[in-house]
Amino acid sequence: MLVMSSPSGAGKTTITRALLKKDDNLSMSISATTRAPRPGEVDGEDYFFIEKTKFEDMVEKDEFLEHAKVFDNYYGTPKGPVDDALGAGKDVLFDVDWQGARDLRHAARDDQVSIFILPPSHDELERRLYTRAQDSEEVVQKRMSKAASEMSHWGEYDYIVINVDIEDSVAQVEAIMTAERLKRNRQTGLPAFVESMSGEEA
Amino acid sequence: MLVMSSPSGAGKTTITRALLKKDDNLSMSISATTRAPRPGEVDGEDYFFIEKTKFEDMVEKDEFLEHAKVFDNYYGTPKGPVDDALGAGKDVLFDVDWQGARDLRHAARDDQVSIFILPPSHDELERRLYTRAQDSEEVVQKRMSKAASEMSHWGEYDYIVINVDIEDSVAQVEAIMTAERLKRNRQTGLPAFVESMSGEEA
Repeated sequence: MLVMSSPSGAGKTTITRALLKKDDNLSMSISATTRAPRPGEVDGEDYFFIEKTKFEDMVEKDEFLEHAKVFDNYYGTPKGPVDDALGAGKDVLFDVDWQGARDLRHAARDDQVSIFILPPSHDELERRLYTRAQDSEEVVQKRMSKAASEMSHWGEYDYIVINVDIEDSVAQVEAIMTAERLKRNRQTGLPAFVESMSGEEA
Repeated sequence: MLVMSSPSGAGKTTITRALLKKDDNLSMSISATTRAPRPGEVDGEDYFFIEKTKFEDMVEKDEFLEHAKVFDNYYGTPKGPVDDALGAGKDVLFDVDWQGARDLRHAARDDQVSIFILPPSHDELERRLYTRAQDSEEVVQKRMSKAASEMSHWGEYDYIVINVDIEDSVAQVEAIMTAERLKRNRQTGLPAFVESMSGEEA
């Protein structure tokens, strides 16, 4: 389980898209939400759009890894698809905020790696937020303050990637995944492998 | 500090040479020994060749990170060059056996990453040992048994790289180094960096 968080504007979406494209063994966890789809959003791609009663029913049945209520809408990570992907030997990427990351940690699944993506500087983040949405000064400043609050949780993550250049950042996240797969305790076949090494020829 | 071990024939020397060539920020820790140089060995490159009395004097002054006596000769890792390289912000590579690795761990320096290189199979290791030295059956079998004993210590290392293909293995060790440098607790400038992010524009 690869958990990625960042303030908006840091480039996380671009990085995750590039990773998913390059790595066949990686799949994205899709969240469920009770909010209405925005123009262009596709059910089962951007989110699973479900009814409030259905969501509450799933909460009741403990079918979420984590869930939260933001204003009047529910958001959550359904267990089923994650377990299916992990069961098939895939790595699963979670794009969540610091609260989602904390809830995933508390969901008592050991094998998690978490990465926090930081923008290269305050000014660059501001510039990206302006360029991206052509929003008013007020809206951008509100987002900057939300970003600062999100960034204050960097200390809860295993790795920190400062996104100066997208390609470098993608390579860095790939290196993290490669390294994590090489960790001794993830290579479950090793005892038998080393055993075969000290034995006689077949 | 990057600590690498492997049985002989697994390809560690080829991997470390490639790493040192590609990574300017990496330097190799050179051991000191009291044994005589073999033909072609260069003082200060392969080893620091020093007198027994000098070695014992250095042991007395606690100038080794680790040292051991093998048959009649001493081998050890002098502290000075390692501290100089680390102080200059370099990563230092240690090519040691499992006992050296254990001694380095016990030398109470926290920031160590250890990698064990395994050969792809028993048969391939045997083939490499035969090809390399044109030694007798008996000598190769002795080496195989020494390799098996070295390999039994794989469980004491952070990462395991199975050396099927040299270029893949070099890339894997590089990924481990990249990932380790991205770990939150290694990025000492982060608190100030994040602080600057939430502040006002300069």
